[in-house]
Amino acid sequence: MLGGLGPAATVDFMARLIAATPAASDQDHLRLLVDHNPAVPDRHDAIAGRSASVGPALAAMARGLERAGADVLVMVCNTAHAWEDDIRAAVTIPFLSIIDATVDALDDRGPRRIGVMAADGCREAGLYQRALDARGCEPVLWEPSEQAAFMALVYRIKAGARGPEAASAMAALAGALAARGAEALIAACTEIPLVLSPEDAPLPLYASTDLLVARTLAFAGIAPA
Amino acid sequence: MLGGLGPAATVDFMARLIAATPAASDQDHLRLLVDHNPAVPDRHDAIAGRSASVGPALAAMARGLERAGADVLVMVCNTAHAWEDDIRAAVTIPFLSIIDATVDALDDRGPRRIGVMAADGCREAGLYQRALDARGCEPVLWEPSEQAAFMALVYRIKAGARGPEAASAMAALAGALAARGAEALIAACTEIPLVLSPEDAPLPLYASTDLLVARTLAFAGIAPA
Repeated sequence: MLGGLGPAATVDFMARLIAATPAASDQDHLRLLVDHNPAVPDRHDAIAGRSASVGPALAAMARGLERAGADVLVMVCNTAHAWEDDIRAAVTIPFLSIIDATVDALDDRGPRRIGVMAADGCREAGLYQRALDARGCEPVLWEPSEQAAFMALVYRIKAGARGPEAASAMAALAGALAARGAEALIAACTEIPLVLSPEDAPLPLYASTDLLVARTLAFAGIAPA
Repeated sequence: MLGGLGPAATVDFMARLIAATPAASDQDHLRLLVDHNPAVPDRHDAIAGRSASVGPALAAMARGLERAGADVLVMVCNTAHAWEDDIRAAVTIPFLSIIDATVDALDDRGPRRIGVMAADGCREAGLYQRALDARGCEPVLWEPSEQAAFMALVYRIKAGARGPEAASAMAALAGALAARGAEALIAACTEIPLVLSPEDAPLPLYASTDLLVARTLAFAGIAPA
């Protein structure tokens, strides 16, 4: 696991993976090697050209995990998948993309207009827009003021905000995409599930964290609990 | 971090460490290298002589973490500290003992009769009894039937039980030590805080998980949030 991007999202992924693993004892769980490295510089700044690429930092983490014995890599951060190619080029083991895991969960006969709740860097890099286009889906994005409100909220969540105020602000931002015609939503940032559960979303919510959990278990040949 | 012993306790430690770190952004958090290895065989069976030592498995994890660049080691499991010497012998970096972190938090002018909520292996290995004796404190332990009830509860928690029933069963076991004369309690198993908070304990509760968090931050030169 390439983690720490951010810390709470990493712990959230681990907790969901553990909860989704059918296990009667410790020994039934998956082994995880986690490089929880919050020192990786801000991804949004890098994608916006305000700072250097974080590709080398992520590639170094990936190499370290392969050297430590990892059989497969996952990264708990959608935006950092802008450097997915750097990671894949650095190792010989497979990398399970959170973007692919998420869009592959969409029903081909289901909603076509998909609201993408993505942070600035993820949006600017076009990660979900490309993946949705390739499936014949139409991404629905926020107005600039809503996008700015989302980023401010993500940084508040990263700083520890998890209360009802953060939850209702996130639900309102989800509602803004519904109002713009989205028929389903992608939680395209791993900070979102820290405050918004599918039950509180105004539309069906495809949570990238949970879908990466499912893909990880599938890779390991484990049927979810 | 030597983790996975068990999985939920490891995630609980990480969440507490992150929450206790004063941070305005991701980059303010500590880097963690986590070997979350639930495949380590049952520690209680090994201490009871029913299976082989798990020292070699823990030593291998410690060596791997040192090789991956760790500056210091912690292990989120009290019972596994029975093999602390094997871990220390395997590496050149320091190891922060959860047992020391916990008993060092006791006030020298405070309670002398300390209830030790410890799992079978931790108790049989005498880890807290020796540490308390060395400080002039008297360990208060459960009757055999209470000890058996605690072990059954720990395995239920490891299998996912976290609800009010598990919480009240844990509070009752804490109460049993109070009834036997304890003036304070040590949560000497990292599964305990998953269901019992200090506010719900009948006596002052020294939680080994939180005290290892505090020692880890202190080692890193960080004042807790």
